[in-house]
Amino acid sequence: MQNKKLSFYFDFVSPYSFFAWEGLLDLAARLNLELEIIPVLFAGLLNAHGQLGPAEIPAKREYVFKDVMRLAAIRGISLQGPPTHPFNPLMALRLVQAVSAADAKKNLVGILLKTSWQEGLDISDKSVLRTVLTHLDLPAGELFAAIETDAIKNQIKENTARAIADKVFGVPSFVVEGELFWGHDRLPMLESWLKGEFRVDEKHLSEFMARPRAADRKSFKKS
Amino acid sequence: MQNKKLSFYFDFVSPYSFFAWEGLLDLAARLNLELEIIPVLFAGLLNAHGQLGPAEIPAKREYVFKDVMRLAAIRGISLQGPPTHPFNPLMALRLVQAVSAADAKKNLVGILLKTSWQEGLDISDKSVLRTVLTHLDLPAGELFAAIETDAIKNQIKENTARAIADKVFGVPSFVVEGELFWGHDRLPMLESWLKGEFRVDEKHLSEFMARPRAADRKSFKKS
Repeated sequence: MQNKKLSFYFDFVSPYSFFAWEGLLDLAARLNLELEIIPVLFAGLLNAHGQLGPAEIPAKREYVFKDVMRLAAIRGISLQGPPTHPFNPLMALRLVQAVSAADAKKNLVGILLKTSWQEGLDISDKSVLRTVLTHLDLPAGELFAAIETDAIKNQIKENTARAIADKVFGVPSFVVEGELFWGHDRLPMLESWLKGEFRVDEKHLSEFMARPRAADRKSFKKS
Repeated sequence: MQNKKLSFYFDFVSPYSFFAWEGLLDLAARLNLELEIIPVLFAGLLNAHGQLGPAEIPAKREYVFKDVMRLAAIRGISLQGPPTHPFNPLMALRLVQAVSAADAKKNLVGILLKTSWQEGLDISDKSVLRTVLTHLDLPAGELFAAIETDAIKNQIKENTARAIADKVFGVPSFVVEGELFWGHDRLPMLESWLKGEFRVDEKHLSEFMARPRAADRKSFKKS
């Protein structure tokens, strides 16, 4: 029997990608899932959905930073956080895309999340990225050349377009058998669903979704 | 020793207020907290922060409806959901505000959340509200008169302004000793914090918050 595929849509700019990572690897190993790593540009999702990101709403930005520090404190992690935020994640995302071997790709994502969020280094800085690649015995020169190609640049755009088509609006998101789960804190729910511990009545959900809107803000424009 | 106060900011329009409620009552009882119920208009929070609500982003609206059905399935609840959504919660919010006795207020919130989300009745409909009030032996005529007064109408506006001042951007939110927690899924974290099981390094957090932004979308306007 073929393993089920678990698609992981993420952007380094979200701290919740960091908090999802270890649990995701653990889940994939325990349930024997094929992990598909899909680097996307969160800013592209925001553009597509016409929404603001947490870092663009001052009260939410402050809350998220605190939430992240709390999650770290609960896990006993000393979280430095990146030197700037938001930062440009494109080079890091493209490097992940450029590495094709599954294990190397996985190792690269893990170490970049840790380098940025836990150790507090700047992963938009090429020299930091070079150090990481060298540490992993990955061919830095070759990979830096690859991320300048249209093929790799376009692939990140295509990943982001695919995320939008999959109705992903935030990161990290997980898709398994067409089911979307959003946020590191939904991993236990995803696991429970995979184990068949609950099912949603899809007919009732469709009926629910189709009910009319009765009150909207003046600013809301129906599409 | 005086009990600690746990402030609960909510709007009936959010299904997560429904999912927070039982756990919140349980937490308040176990930790001997004074529960302060603060009905706010979620639309007012969205206006203040210039953000879109989940119901205003099609992909997020669909996800939230599904998430809510999953949470219900996990809890073994048959969730009908309200007949329209978003609906106008103002009459229900004002009724909660108009009831001053703590126990009656608590009972009213609980039954309205259940009536709307679990049983699927329309709590923007005065006749539904009248039935609920009568069922609770509350003076419907007196309360319906009260919610037409400027005093009660203004109080909802003041609650919403207080939420904004407390940096609340979403519902349900909880504030205890000046600490904000957002979402029903952060109740375990709130409990852990109250028990002193973790603490955030506030100095490090402030330093983290003060770091520069290095990449913003073109559409982002710094305030």
